Amino acid sequence: MTILTFTTDFGTEDGNVGVMKGVAWGIAPEAQIADLSHQIAPQNIRQAAFVLARQVFYFPEGSVHVVVVDPGVGTARRPIAARVGTQLFVGPDNGVFTPLYQRGKQEGWPVEIVHTNKPEYWRGEISHIFHGRDIFSAVGGHLAAGVPLKDLGEPVDDPVLIDWSEPQLKENRWLGQVSYIDHFGNMFVNIDHRHLDGWEVVAVQVGRERIAGMVNAFGERAVGDLIALYSSTKELLIAQVNGSAANVTDAAVGDPIEVIVRKAS
Amino acid sequence: MTILTFTTDFGTEDGNVGVMKGVAWGIAPEAQIADLSHQIAPQNIRQAAFVLARQVFYFPEGSVHVVVVDPGVGTARRPIAARVGTQLFVGPDNGVFTPLYQRGKQEGWPVEIVHTNKPEYWRGEISHIFHGRDIFSAVGGHLAAGVPLKDLGEPVDDPVLIDWSEPQLKENRWLGQVSYIDHFGNMFVNIDHRHLDGWEVVAVQVGRERIAGMVNAFGERAVGDLIALYSSTKELLIAQVNGSAANVTDAAVGDPIEVIVRKAS
Amino acid sequence: MTILTFTTDFGTEDGNVGVMKGVAWGIAPEAQIADLSHQIAPQNIRQAAFVLARQVFYFPEGSVHVVVVDPGVGTARRPIAARVGTQLFVGPDNGVFTPLYQRGKQEGWPVEIVHTNKPEYWRGEISHIFHGRDIFSAVGGHLAAGVPLKDLGEPVDDPVLIDWSEPQLKENRWLGQVSYIDHFGNMFVNIDHRHLDGWEVVAVQVGRERIAGMVNAFGERAVGDLIALYSSTKELLIAQVNGSAANVTDAAVGDPIEVIVRKAS
Repeated sequence: MTILTFTTDFGTEDGNVGVMKGVAWGIAPEAQIADLSHQIAPQNIRQAAFVLARQVFYFPEGSVHVVVVDPGVGTARRPIAARVGTQLFVGPDNGVFTPLYQRGKQEGWPVEIVHTNKPEYWRGEISHIFHGRDIFSAVGGHLAAGVPLKDLGEPVDDPVLIDWSEPQLKENRWLGQVSYIDHFGNMFVNIDHRHLDGWEVVAVQVGRERIAGMVNAFGERAVGDLIALYSSTKELLIAQVNGSAANVTDAAVGDPIEVIVRKAS
Repeated sequence: MTILTFTTDFGTEDGNVGVMKGVAWGIAPEAQIADLSHQIAPQNIRQAAFVLARQVFYFPEGSVHVVVVDPGVGTARRPIAARVGTQLFVGPDNGVFTPLYQRGKQEGWPVEIVHTNKPEYWRGEISHIFHGRDIFSAVGGHLAAGVPLKDLGEPVDDPVLIDWSEPQLKENRWLGQVSYIDHFGNMFVNIDHRHLDGWEVVAVQVGRERIAGMVNAFGERAVGDLIALYSSTKELLIAQVNGSAANVTDAAVGDPIEVIVRKAS
Repeated sequence: MTILTFTTDFGTEDGNVGVMKGVAWGIAPEAQIADLSHQIAPQNIRQAAFVLARQVFYFPEGSVHVVVVDPGVGTARRPIAARVGTQLFVGPDNGVFTPLYQRGKQEGWPVEIVHTNKPEYWRGEISHIFHGRDIFSAVGGHLAAGVPLKDLGEPVDDPVLIDWSEPQLKENRWLGQVSYIDHFGNMFVNIDHRHLDGWEVVAVQVGRERIAGMVNAFGERAVGDLIALYSSTKELLIAQVNGSAANVTDAAVGDPIEVIVRKAS
């Protein structure tokens, strides 16, 4: 049994997600298939990269994650597959795997990338506009069925990367930005436990709102309070207890966030 | 093969549902996993309780239902697991299982509840804000893999309950309320076949609208007509043929509904 | 292992999709289940027919597709099951399978239809308003478990059909219409490669917008450009590069589309 996940900007109304599962099961009939997200905003590579990087390392070893956010479909952009640590990935070489490669490097995990250009691992006929069905799902199916990564194509050592900005420390302030807003309106900041370890958080500034300190859990403050805490994946999270921090602060992805710190004693 | 279902207020865009499945399959690789709903309104325990109670007893014996609508995550509220009749449940002890316990009592089914406080059945590291991933999915996985309920923790005999109101009979009127509005705008009423057996329904009053009698199926009336009928789970349902009764009547969950009855002859 | 898919107008919030999977797995525990779409507009048989016909022939042989868009539930409309080529279908006899029967005839594939009226293949108790759970999912489960189609009921030779219009050729113009608008706002036209083979497309007229020629892939034009190209299923598609053609042109399903052609040289 291998797990296959799908992350796309397809929505779920047109049947395009279902048909990719059909193709994958045609090759790997025993695969367990889960959706990660199909509500990535159209062509939003950065958002897909964030969702993927947050979630995939909680999956069992050998899980295969197929990503189809692919504005360059049908052009010269390469289809690729990769291993980062325990997990396998398939998708377009458009930068969507950038934070995974970074994570692999930071953790010292093996990172291998191949150009999946062998038609014997694709469907028989290839549409110019739906490589998700005709290439990526088929390649994902073959990986799930046990085909070794290196058999799928030539090694790639120059994958496309997108800018994945790190926060800056200026005296006693970490300057970062909102990297993602979730279903509840919780705001993820590109400042995480690796940046804040060794510091005490005095306050978090979000536009005009100033949040004093951090808490461990939602239940430590009253309903309606704005709080700062670690997300379940250890990024700084700005949330409203039983409400939407994004609505209250009117913040958007990319907005600046300032964390005032002092050396932990 | 065991079936595992998930019911949450997470939405489906952030990958949090997918990661719970990954954790569960890591423990129970053969489990068949279905979503019940991820569109419970944020923190709406009552709505989750309704969806769950309506659906779960149609599942094969031994199915495991994981529920994560959990405003108290990270506080002292207990994680619990339960058996009610043929079905197993995992989630926070916040009242979300109230109608299931009630149903078990009414039907004379066995009801067993345990405090799932043994870390050996959890993930290794526990976030303060995502017990869905770190506790409930792991415990659900262990149940699906055959761990007996009683091994998961100490018995609980004082589960948290929420008010789950029964309709009142006043002379020839059943006084109830709207308990749920579905995707089609059909309105479920907290009056069901157990209340109406032995009575003939003369009319149903919804705000200013008066519906004469009940029908068996949508097709018995013209498109656009308001009708009263039994839902597929035998609650009183107020619907509009090929339309939305909720839109037409402008009713909301909690609004009063009156059913005028006379003794069936 | 057999694949089962579900296509409904149920949405995903009420648990009705999950319960259908529970019923099917109760009969075919090893079935792999995928959703095709649950966002068919309420009672929109034509939309369900389109989604189904586009996707199903990419599934492995013997896959079973359960469709529940069923305004006539509880009336005299027949529950049916069918084989068209390699694929099996279950649902109401309301015309939702029309383009599948047509496709089968065009391709010379076997088409068999039966009236699934044998209660031994249904759930024990039948609701008047949810045959999706009580009949179609159970019948789908039995097909997935290997019961032969012909055992499910008497042959049907007069299935209900809906009008499924073909485009008209008037001199050098193919006159068609918008048949579907997808998640991205791409507009599918009821003119496909079978109509255009042998012709060169000079221009496509959508309301006041005139698109010169066709392209092979999105990436051949600049972001924001309106383009005409073949969909991944070889219908004529009108799209905006990284945008929504439906928004830009303000077009709706049913709107006329004109394709100006000349004989390919």
